[in-house]
Amino acid sequence: MVDLTKINNPSFIKQLDNEQLKELATNIRSFLIEKLSVTGGHIGPNLGVVELTLILHKLFDSPNDKFLWDVGHQAYVHKILTGRANEFDTLRQYKGLCGFPKMDESVHDVWEAGHSSTSLSAAMGMAVARDIKGEDNYVLPIIGDGALTGGMALEALNHIGHEKTNMIVILNDNEMSIAPNVGALHSILGKLRTAGKYNSVKDELEYILKKIPAVGGKVATAAERVKDSLKYLLVSGVFFEELGFTYLGPVDGHDFVDLERNLNYAKKMEGPILFHVITKKGKGYRPAENDKIGTWHGTGPYKIETGDFVKSTASAPSWSGLIADTVSEIARDDKRVVAITPAMPVGSKLEAFAEEFPDRFFDVGIAEQHATTMAAGLATQGMKPFLAIYSTFLQRSYDQVLHDISRQNLNVVFGIDRAGLVGADGETHQGVYDIAFLRHMPNLVIMMPKDENEGQHMVKTAMDYNDGPIAIRYPRGNGLGVPLDETLQPIPIGTWEVIRRGTDAAILTFGTSIPMALEAADLLSEKGLEVMVVNARFIKPLDTHMLDNLFDQEIPIMTVEEAVLAGGFGSAVLEYAHDVSYNAAPIERMGIPDQFIEHGDVPQLLAEIGMTAENLAVEVHGVVEKYVLKRENV
Amino acid sequence: MVDLTKINNPSFIKQLDNEQLKELATNIRSFLIEKLSVTGGHIGPNLGVVELTLILHKLFDSPNDKFLWDVGHQAYVHKILTGRANEFDTLRQYKGLCGFPKMDESVHDVWEAGHSSTSLSAAMGMAVARDIKGEDNYVLPIIGDGALTGGMALEALNHIGHEKTNMIVILNDNEMSIAPNVGALHSILGKLRTAGKYNSVKDELEYILKKIPAVGGKVATAAERVKDSLKYLLVSGVFFEELGFTYLGPVDGHDFVDLERNLNYAKKMEGPILFHVITKKGKGYRPAENDKIGTWHGTGPYKIETGDFVKSTASAPSWSGLIADTVSEIARDDKRVVAITPAMPVGSKLEAFAEEFPDRFFDVGIAEQHATTMAAGLATQGMKPFLAIYSTFLQRSYDQVLHDISRQNLNVVFGIDRAGLVGADGETHQGVYDIAFLRHMPNLVIMMPKDENEGQHMVKTAMDYNDGPIAIRYPRGNGLGVPLDETLQPIPIGTWEVIRRGTDAAILTFGTSIPMALEAADLLSEKGLEVMVVNARFIKPLDTHMLDNLFDQEIPIMTVEEAVLAGGFGSAVLEYAHDVSYNAAPIERMGIPDQFIEHGDVPQLLAEIGMTAENLAVEVHGVVEKYVLKRENV
Repeated sequence: MVDLTKINNPSFIKQLDNEQLKELATNIRSFLIEKLSVTGGHIGPNLGVVELTLILHKLFDSPNDKFLWDVGHQAYVHKILTGRANEFDTLRQYKGLCGFPKMDESVHDVWEAGHSSTSLSAAMGMAVARDIKGEDNYVLPIIGDGALTGGMALEALNHIGHEKTNMIVILNDNEMSIAPNVGALHSILGKLRTAGKYNSVKDELEYILKKIPAVGGKVATAAERVKDSLKYLLVSGVFFEELGFTYLGPVDGHDFVDLERNLNYAKKMEGPILFHVITKKGKGYRPAENDKIGTWHGTGPYKIETGDFVKSTASAPSWSGLIADTVSEIARDDKRVVAITPAMPVGSKLEAFAEEFPDRFFDVGIAEQHATTMAAGLATQGMKPFLAIYSTFLQRSYDQVLHDISRQNLNVVFGIDRAGLVGADGETHQGVYDIAFLRHMPNLVIMMPKDENEGQHMVKTAMDYNDGPIAIRYPRGNGLGVPLDETLQPIPIGTWEVIRRGTDAAILTFGTSIPMALEAADLLSEKGLEVMVVNARFIKPLDTHMLDNLFDQEIPIMTVEEAVLAGGFGSAVLEYAHDVSYNAAPIERMGIPDQFIEHGDVPQLLAEIGMTAENLAVEVHGVVEKYVLKRENV
Repeated sequence: MVDLTKINNPSFIKQLDNEQLKELATNIRSFLIEKLSVTGGHIGPNLGVVELTLILHKLFDSPNDKFLWDVGHQAYVHKILTGRANEFDTLRQYKGLCGFPKMDESVHDVWEAGHSSTSLSAAMGMAVARDIKGEDNYVLPIIGDGALTGGMALEALNHIGHEKTNMIVILNDNEMSIAPNVGALHSILGKLRTAGKYNSVKDELEYILKKIPAVGGKVATAAERVKDSLKYLLVSGVFFEELGFTYLGPVDGHDFVDLERNLNYAKKMEGPILFHVITKKGKGYRPAENDKIGTWHGTGPYKIETGDFVKSTASAPSWSGLIADTVSEIARDDKRVVAITPAMPVGSKLEAFAEEFPDRFFDVGIAEQHATTMAAGLATQGMKPFLAIYSTFLQRSYDQVLHDISRQNLNVVFGIDRAGLVGADGETHQGVYDIAFLRHMPNLVIMMPKDENEGQHMVKTAMDYNDGPIAIRYPRGNGLGVPLDETLQPIPIGTWEVIRRGTDAAILTFGTSIPMALEAADLLSEKGLEVMVVNARFIKPLDTHMLDNLFDQEIPIMTVEEAVLAGGFGSAVLEYAHDVSYNAAPIERMGIPDQFIEHGDVPQLLAEIGMTAENLAVEVHGVVEKYVLKRENV
């Protein structure tokens, strides 16, 4: 039994024989299963790459050779082997070990990710830098079959294959992305898997093919076709070969002998290699191995023996579920409704919709750009597409939202899931940019509900709205547990509501920040200040009628948003105030400052940047005091 | 001779025989060559698709059948055939005919574009809508070989091929995007072109293949491979076949017989078809036909007889050329410098760099996402990538800039070309969003020079800067003709400069708006107001030192930007003012309102939204007057 916490660096692996590697693999699996049962984390992907990670560290020299973990949630084994096992108790926790590669943590983390499909482009940059500098090292992006369908990965394949750059692309094929994979590439890989291994004859074949003489004219063309055809017969992976890669595989990703022999072969070859490894997500832990829909991709704590998840205490419905169910409810009567998800049917809780309306449901795989413009195409034909997409992944569709949907003013409904801080996934996943990047798009309406009852009415609002695109933001996690009205009612566009009265100051906020604002108002009330709290549920358009009223009262205003301050909701209020030449009383803003917010519990993260009820109360109090003093002096 | 201006709709084409079609094609070519010699426009792409467009309108029923012109600059022939010939004198001019499909112009324009690679996703949406509604029509995206390498088009291929949706994808292969094409897909198409036509045997082959019996176990696998191999031998387009498409082609895109026979064949087939048409860009006009680098893709006015371009009178260097030349100059000494362009070597004037530093130049094709993250990869290895990218196309890389570059704080230099209004290309291409979508990204520095001399110093500034990503915005067109310093000098980060003194008010602006501000100041001076003009060359970070000084003076401030107001530079100034609790004197903003700006001359477009020196003078005067009155009343 190796004590994993004593590992400082991966050099010891080079001395291990296969029996020792197997033992180490067993150790690592036990370690992961145990640690993650307490902290939660991406158990499935990591159990699948134990042998692969070990053999990579055995045959290559990290960090001189570059491992780029695409998406990055499968780098736990790599973290263990590079001296970070003793930090796993803090995995994905505040100030603890990051769930993704992190340059600050280790020199062995040469590329950070979180979003999918970036590794091939980054690898191309690294390989080109190596060649320009005349250096000699291996560049190894490790990418899943799911991530391969992301547009930028395909752009990269096209470029790398053309340039013939030396690189070994490890295609980690576990037949899943997060949910089961979709798309034609998935079928291609399926055929390769069942076709078996042909790489052993590769040497001989290359030799034979080279013997076919080059001749001119039509004969040459025919000869080329025969060569290509032979290649297709004997060599797998014609799709990748056509793209300019040498295909090697499929290789059993849990067999050290198979992995080592083929990787050693790959090391000797020139040009880009597509190294196809078959792995089993969740390998070595029965509940995760048996997972068919992606439940064990990333989890919270669980009981090791049974695989039962430790239930959260929340009794309120999840936001994703509430929104998806309301979409289903409306879809029963409204045949225009179609739901689209880029690879998140589970996360977006669209399984029930998919089952009830199979013809009106599309999981397009990891392909946010396509998902968005496909929604645009549907809208041109009078359909009402509901695009369920996480705030952080909508970043991939910025141009499609602006150029295709907002510019053509199409009736697409965006369900912007995981809006606001997301917690454990950290800085790559925080949904705090969408307001700033959507707010300047003409024609777009942006809403966020204060609770799940308002949330369901907002879905109705969006489905009834036929004047252009409209977005509902909602946070990760569960609602507040409020009762749900039986009848859905649209909310008038651009209307806010006062949810607490007060005349000393006004807090304008929305969504998850409302409870904090109400708490701050209570604290201020204890100090003798009565502060209005406004549910600014339309982030665009603003409720200018209410703003005009507030300006008439000449009381200090504080805007609060769980989103970046630069160009955000607060800025929208400032812009409007200046547009109407209002500067009688101060307007202050609270929100996410100009920095990336790392992983941790959301309340901790908010506290770190001063977003607490206590602090809000102090800030408002200070503004009011200063303002009153100033007024008295005048 | 058909009078093209008498055409109301394309139904008459159905009656024409091939001789008549040929005559019409000749007419259309003459018309285009003549009209565009005066107005300029996308002559090359349109001369290439005359026969293709005619045959599509003959064999299909627009708008019930949907033509989606990818990118859209090849839709002139379609515009002529749908009753818009008499508007060609106003092509791409203010209030004139749009250079791209436009729903407002015609019911035959069912999808608008401008940016590349959107047509397949939109077509998928339309096809799915058709199937859900139980309707029956053809959906025909027409996409160039260049646009096919854009990631979203590849995402769409993967999805369409998997879903087996009925659709005829017309691949218009002219071996160019704007510049000559790059990438592995280009090689694949090249092989197909030389391999000749095999579609005539397709029927028989399908029959033979179906006769190979299905058997179980290993034999089945072997049989499958033999089938696939035969297919590869006899059927072209295995790359597309692997993706789930039926490949038809190559078809001679200038031969009505070949086009008609094969399209009729395609109409009868089920599932997605990849219809590969070979066309010649610039066909029928010698200067355009002979173009090898993309000069005749889109042009200004030219002399028909000689193909000489009507020279613009500008003697100042083009912005793109000035910036690119400075990058070359620095690259001579600084071996870290690498230049990357997504398919715009000509537009970004990087040909000289490419020639001088072939190993450090990368045209990655239409693949903005890959280009951006490849730059990130280079930066991790200590290189200094210069990513030349148009403002409007940087929209495609929003997530890559944020997630890969700004988050990892990598030393990438962005050359944001065509920043601000671009004129004739219109609303799809206006470079007015980048400030609003980049300003909230931590670590990023954003600059814009007042003239080409400052521009060259900014390139130096960027190349010397090693604390993270830095962007230089520069406009379309030519500089001001100022003398250039011989020695490059970095500009201190975050410093503005006062370029005109004054104490009654201050105009804060940058780049192309500076001449307007100076002119407004002159007009105001005539009215007795002395207005300071500040070159706010750093959009981020702001020069807070200078702002503090301005706030101390308590004079009205006007911000001016040729960019969207929501979340823009002016908002940044407002945000800072509120952060330091400054509200002594008014701050007003001028810029692009919340609407799309169509095509036309830039001065006309600016005038339409009130951005003229005269109006600026009036606005500033009004603010000052009101402020002075208010002060006197206090």
